[in-house]
Amino acid sequence: MASNMYLIWGSGSIPCWKAMLVLEEKGFGGYPNKLVSFSNKEHKGEDVMKLNPRGQVPTFKDGDIVVNESTAICQYLERRYADKGTKLIPDQPAEHASVLQRMFEISNIEQNMMKDYAYYMFRTKKEDQKEEVIKEKVTNAQKELAIWEGYLQASKPGNFVAGKTFSMADAFFFPFIAFSVRLGLNLDKYPAIKEYYNRVSKRDSVQKTWPPHWSTEEAKMDFMKDL
Amino acid sequence: MASNMYLIWGSGSIPCWKAMLVLEEKGFGGYPNKLVSFSNKEHKGEDVMKLNPRGQVPTFKDGDIVVNESTAICQYLERRYADKGTKLIPDQPAEHASVLQRMFEISNIEQNMMKDYAYYMFRTKKEDQKEEVIKEKVTNAQKELAIWEGYLQASKPGNFVAGKTFSMADAFFFPFIAFSVRLGLNLDKYPAIKEYYNRVSKRDSVQKTWPPHWSTEEAKMDFMKDL
Repeated sequence: MASNMYLIWGSGSIPCWKAMLVLEEKGFGGYPNKLVSFSNKEHKGEDVMKLNPRGQVPTFKDGDIVVNESTAICQYLERRYADKGTKLIPDQPAEHASVLQRMFEISNIEQNMMKDYAYYMFRTKKEDQKEEVIKEKVTNAQKELAIWEGYLQASKPGNFVAGKTFSMADAFFFPFIAFSVRLGLNLDKYPAIKEYYNRVSKRDSVQKTWPPHWSTEEAKMDFMKDL
Repeated sequence: MASNMYLIWGSGSIPCWKAMLVLEEKGFGGYPNKLVSFSNKEHKGEDVMKLNPRGQVPTFKDGDIVVNESTAICQYLERRYADKGTKLIPDQPAEHASVLQRMFEISNIEQNMMKDYAYYMFRTKKEDQKEEVIKEKVTNAQKELAIWEGYLQASKPGNFVAGKTFSMADAFFFPFIAFSVRLGLNLDKYPAIKEYYNRVSKRDSVQKTWPPHWSTEEAKMDFMKDL
């Protein structure tokens, strides 16, 4: 519990989920927080805007220190509270490099699976969607998944995306996979990711931060079944 | 000089420039390196692919440790060589948070100025470009620049994007501004960014890493004059 902290977040937001996973892993569960509704545009509300003029969540405060970018929040917490909870970024140079590499390599998932593919499916009217455009996006998303399937296959079963223990790279990776599964992704084609997903889903920090509306509302789309 | 290190890079690549700025700031100038030509697709060549199967640059090695994502390279160098050269990420919590916030807030510049705007201008045939689409992208890019102009105006002249000294946030920010200037951006409308740009351009690390082809070849486009 960390009564000095305050998080404003939205359910199902991947950046929010990253920060929330790290807060739990570092042992700060129970921190004061506010859930905002994206559909009611509450992330553009006054309490967000005064801490974060971009009107985005997560918006985070630790005492007087305001940090809003999800990657910044995660790294700030890990370094400031280095001796608390799970060690998410290792000190030893080779392991350190490996966790950093995977943490930032995840921008490729964000680009290929979310910005290029999912956003197109979300934002383009059905009648304006072009089959050959979708086909190219599906191919790129499949290639991206195959890269991560390869990483997990090359490591021992029971391992994580950057080594033997849960690291910051997992806090960044897992929400993308869970979001993809919610959007229809069938992990049978990606057995190592499937084993990882099933195992990490049961982790305490993941259970405690699971997007609440996912438990009560079905997803409106399932286009990722095509991957 | 760091003969154990090896960098493969491309001239004018913002991610490469970030890593090169950090290498200079940490005092590793003169490290072995290889310049590849994007137009000849050398970043997909064998020597890149064996270290970085994604076929991207920067590709970087420090002894046996391979790190390829530019943000990962920068953070790896800063932490492993914490006692060398410029301290780019401060230890004190408030300053640490401020540098991290700006470092990752730069993803908004990348999105609004590069991916949404510049890539559209680069990749859409003149006859397919739509005026109202460009107008919206220009407005978003202007809003983004205004945010950073505000940050620099609010700080004292002579300061940097996250405080009084050159930090990792500057190594991430400066290449975007320099690239925008090369694409026609007139900084007269953004006087604090202009003062910053002129001052930081003269910095030793910046001079030593200036994209070599920028000195010999004119840019092919100048659409950022509209910002």
